[in-house]
Amino acid sequence: MHSPLGRIRQMHRRLLIKPRSKVDLAAFDPSDTRHLGGKQEAQAQLLRDAEAIDLLQDRLYAEGKRALLVILQGMDTSGKDGAVRAVFGRTGPLGISVTSFKAPSAEELAHDFLWRAHRACPQRGTIGIFNRSQYEDVLIGRVRMLAPPDIIEHRYNQINAFEDMISSSTRIVKFMLHISKDVQRDRLQERLDLSHKHWKFDPSDIEERKLWDDYMNAYETMLSRCSTKIAPWYIIPSNKKWARNATIAAIVRATLEDMDPQYPKPEWDPASFTIR
Amino acid sequence: MHSPLGRIRQMHRRLLIKPRSKVDLAAFDPSDTRHLGGKQEAQAQLLRDAEAIDLLQDRLYAEGKRALLVILQGMDTSGKDGAVRAVFGRTGPLGISVTSFKAPSAEELAHDFLWRAHRACPQRGTIGIFNRSQYEDVLIGRVRMLAPPDIIEHRYNQINAFEDMISSSTRIVKFMLHISKDVQRDRLQERLDLSHKHWKFDPSDIEERKLWDDYMNAYETMLSRCSTKIAPWYIIPSNKKWARNATIAAIVRATLEDMDPQYPKPEWDPASFTIR
Repeated sequence: MHSPLGRIRQMHRRLLIKPRSKVDLAAFDPSDTRHLGGKQEAQAQLLRDAEAIDLLQDRLYAEGKRALLVILQGMDTSGKDGAVRAVFGRTGPLGISVTSFKAPSAEELAHDFLWRAHRACPQRGTIGIFNRSQYEDVLIGRVRMLAPPDIIEHRYNQINAFEDMISSSTRIVKFMLHISKDVQRDRLQERLDLSHKHWKFDPSDIEERKLWDDYMNAYETMLSRCSTKIAPWYIIPSNKKWARNATIAAIVRATLEDMDPQYPKPEWDPASFTIR
Repeated sequence: MHSPLGRIRQMHRRLLIKPRSKVDLAAFDPSDTRHLGGKQEAQAQLLRDAEAIDLLQDRLYAEGKRALLVILQGMDTSGKDGAVRAVFGRTGPLGISVTSFKAPSAEELAHDFLWRAHRACPQRGTIGIFNRSQYEDVLIGRVRMLAPPDIIEHRYNQINAFEDMISSSTRIVKFMLHISKDVQRDRLQERLDLSHKHWKFDPSDIEERKLWDDYMNAYETMLSRCSTKIAPWYIIPSNKKWARNATIAAIVRATLEDMDPQYPKPEWDPASFTIR
């Protein structure tokens, strides 16, 4: 009998970043699917996992003691929005909240960089999804030099301390959606070619793409320094959408099963009440 | 060819509260299903409507100009949580937010009664669901005399003015989930009888139930005074869960179709970009 996390041992072995390990993204094939069965099998399993996540979320909500925070990071077109829909599209909306982190507002900039992340943390009983996150401040923040290098350098430890603090009530799991530069080109081109996808294209995406190598370096540093036992990073091969979705769903499900939320026992005796 | 709202003309005729009309809840049968086909047909239609709401929400999100606010009110066990799951359980989580209004916090009490509702209003491009709402302040607020009568009396107009103000960017639709006192007894009893439902039972529910008639009066006043052209109230017969869900889904879908959100046209020429 495997533990819930043991069942996805293959994924752990290949995709989980061990604390304090040096990450070389070139060693991770973004088209890798060896941790999965074939496409059909993975798609069928995804549906089962999405249903299971819904049931587990119901128990988490009833229990009301702990939260789950799912962090998604990745380059433009890596499929963060699509993953949210595929993995959590069957979860009841009551116990889930998605926060999409955009360029910070004037009010957010007037606070420390973790302020807006902290405000968005899920309350006990719910699943919170960060679509981008505090890690933007060591990704675009580093690549675009939005703060002095020593400030950026300090942020990795600050994020680790922050995540350690919220972990008293919140389980954390972090996914880096890993795609190749070629796949990004194809997907950006598709946004130009299909009129119902035009709204997803932002001309500035092309400027960010020119800094691809700088971004990969920033991701490697982030993965090396911020994958911890209480808040692990997984690298999700995301060139194939079906593999991306199936992998994330499997890990989220196993994480929730490992949390094993329980319907609470009442402090009162059900037989003591009469309803007239 | 019917307009989107014309297609649910039966529901409008029976369930929509006309502005400034005197409401007598006794005239609304909570078991009424005449506005629907049979149970099987309604359940099949619910699934189609839930899928359609998902597609419409995607267009609303892409358009990014308007929001939809769905307000749910009803006595304990009237099925607010169940309706959220049935109607919005197929909607992608990115563009939806649910706010469950509980007893106000000390910080909320330190502000005017609309402050917390305003903070929770959905941003453009999204659907916001209020599971309970500002109307608590003229329901439990009135029944439990949580404020002086003249203050409560003033709130109806204040709510109307508030809803008029947010309607510049937000479409509003309001549902009162109408059940009979007998059905509430059965559902409360079920929460005592089934151990996995114990967590939903609160001993204070029995105290509120004793004030049933006072609550019905408060609902009637609310419906009479706060159903407006820009923010209409519908009375949803909710003794039968399938009818409740099917009715709400049909009205939400028709409302979104009436809004008719569009994928935006870009301000740039797709052919002007080359992605390398």
